[in-house]
Amino acid sequence: MSPESQPVQPQVRRVTVLGAGSWGTTFAKVLADAGRDVTMWARRPEVAEEISQRHSNEAYLPGITLPEQIGATSDPAKALEGADAVVLAVPSQSLRANLVRWRDLLPKGAILVSLAKGVELDTLLRMSEVISEIAGVPSGEVVAVSGPNLAREIAQGQPAAAVLACADHDRAVAIQQAAFNSYFRPYTNTDVVGCELAGACKNVIALSCGMAAGLGFGANTMATLITRGLAEMARLGAKLGADPLTFAGLAGVGDLVATCSSPLSRNRTFGERVGRGETIEEAKAAQGGQVAEGVASCVSIRALAAQVGVDMPITEAMYRVCHEGCAPARAGAELLGRQQKHEWS
Amino acid sequence: MSPESQPVQPQVRRVTVLGAGSWGTTFAKVLADAGRDVTMWARRPEVAEEISQRHSNEAYLPGITLPEQIGATSDPAKALEGADAVVLAVPSQSLRANLVRWRDLLPKGAILVSLAKGVELDTLLRMSEVISEIAGVPSGEVVAVSGPNLAREIAQGQPAAAVLACADHDRAVAIQQAAFNSYFRPYTNTDVVGCELAGACKNVIALSCGMAAGLGFGANTMATLITRGLAEMARLGAKLGADPLTFAGLAGVGDLVATCSSPLSRNRTFGERVGRGETIEEAKAAQGGQVAEGVASCVSIRALAAQVGVDMPITEAMYRVCHEGCAPARAGAELLGRQQKHEWS
Repeated sequence: MSPESQPVQPQVRRVTVLGAGSWGTTFAKVLADAGRDVTMWARRPEVAEEISQRHSNEAYLPGITLPEQIGATSDPAKALEGADAVVLAVPSQSLRANLVRWRDLLPKGAILVSLAKGVELDTLLRMSEVISEIAGVPSGEVVAVSGPNLAREIAQGQPAAAVLACADHDRAVAIQQAAFNSYFRPYTNTDVVGCELAGACKNVIALSCGMAAGLGFGANTMATLITRGLAEMARLGAKLGADPLTFAGLAGVGDLVATCSSPLSRNRTFGERVGRGETIEEAKAAQGGQVAEGVASCVSIRALAAQVGVDMPITEAMYRVCHEGCAPARAGAELLGRQQKHEWS
Repeated sequence: MSPESQPVQPQVRRVTVLGAGSWGTTFAKVLADAGRDVTMWARRPEVAEEISQRHSNEAYLPGITLPEQIGATSDPAKALEGADAVVLAVPSQSLRANLVRWRDLLPKGAILVSLAKGVELDTLLRMSEVISEIAGVPSGEVVAVSGPNLAREIAQGQPAAAVLACADHDRAVAIQQAAFNSYFRPYTNTDVVGCELAGACKNVIALSCGMAAGLGFGANTMATLITRGLAEMARLGAKLGADPLTFAGLAGVGDLVATCSSPLSRNRTFGERVGRGETIEEAKAAQGGQVAEGVASCVSIRALAAQVGVDMPITEAMYRVCHEGCAPARAGAELLGRQQKHEWS
């Protein structure tokens, strides 16, 4: 009787998280609570000091106490020393520029993990493709994190499920083992294309749900936007080789529903302000100068859809509102006015 | 050049709505606003009088003014006289008993439309099957209405999409034409099994979302329950011959999201009370003695799932809470404790 053969997994002991926003900081907490040795890099030295000395990040996670074993520095070389895995937690449109600065510091063989959700403007690349190009690793080795993961709720220790997508199943399992703890339950998935596209598209649909709420519409309208939004992102995914099942799962409908229904979602809140009559600039100023990811994503996703000939009416409507000055009410009326008879025709 | 051939549709001019709850009354308003001649039947004469004289139904739709052309009576024979279509708008578990009283009064050839969402206890029949059995019409001729349709929002004139499911496409189109108005957009679908099952199952998932909210959990948990709930209802549907696409559409994810996320949903509100620590009896009393549909539905859906060998863990958890006295927190912990590694395994 021979013992069952076990695939050999790379052991992940030491993890570096690059970026100290709400999701990066929360993911660092998840890893530390799972017993990993975690070092964060923060752009601003005072944030690094706050995390390592006072165990908090008040700007992004007010009221949350971080584990004492999380170290932090504003020196990327120091942060990256000896890491078995590197978590990239910067906004999607600045990932390339940051990674160019970091690439020579990445420890050889470290597993690269992406928390960014978006499609790059100009290149129309997904985040794992950008990482592959700059870091010089096969894109099939990058792990993308997705799922219904509002950072603040996870930071509070509420139970959450997530998806770790990687073409190389062993790498996904290594991160799964490194991140699994009493409140965080990660599932593996090999459909990186579907998970990344769903994660990027959902920010655009969340903008539209926010606008509908700002215009005074209720749950029927939100549910209809979520349903039709899911259909349009699945159409895009199918054209680009994604597995349709992904859109029915945690990285698809799960992430979409969490982002569209929570007041904690930046994209939803941004859309709500615009729906109530604020301009894009006013909404941006009201959110501390930060533009919601969906505002850029609707440009790149619309371009990607045009490139492969897929119809994405909600994304188109968000593009018209965010970049062509169309009033949200008019964009909504145009969406409603579309001629359709059978649900799938 | 010959003109395009048009299928002949039965014309629906006069419609009777049997039942004066919030959805029945709202659907009567939709039909009247679409130009139909509508008569409602209400069990209590004073409600019939309120609807026909004062154009309101304060118990179910407070603050809503109904169209003056809606007539109402508590005499079913009078209500049904000359109807081209009959809308059955009574709770699912009392549909059979009501229909037995009405069957000899149904005008010959009238299209029967079901607003009820549930699976009958004991027989495990869907509503169109119950109607078929009692009214003596083929079940393929019954039209089932589904979709993200919180009654109050539609009664306020907010735009909404719905699904009219009927194996006989012509009958669905006849009701589509009869109900289409400036704010109500019905789509046709031939998958009655999928639409009816989704409509029944979603009440059970809404109970679970309410309980999670009552226990203090946020949007991640709700989104996870919706995602896994969608998966378990799709598994049941697939086993019973439904089209998987239905669960991704308005009658599936659309109805599910609307019901699970709105404070207007009776099932969600009921679950929230139980999650906060009220007993089933206390929650029932607090909602005017009405039990949420999901409380009965989890019994019949669980039995149906057992009959065909489908695993429905959330439905099972709701059964344990509503009928076996299990504490919501314990049922939730058991759900979380399930061993799963790959999302679809």
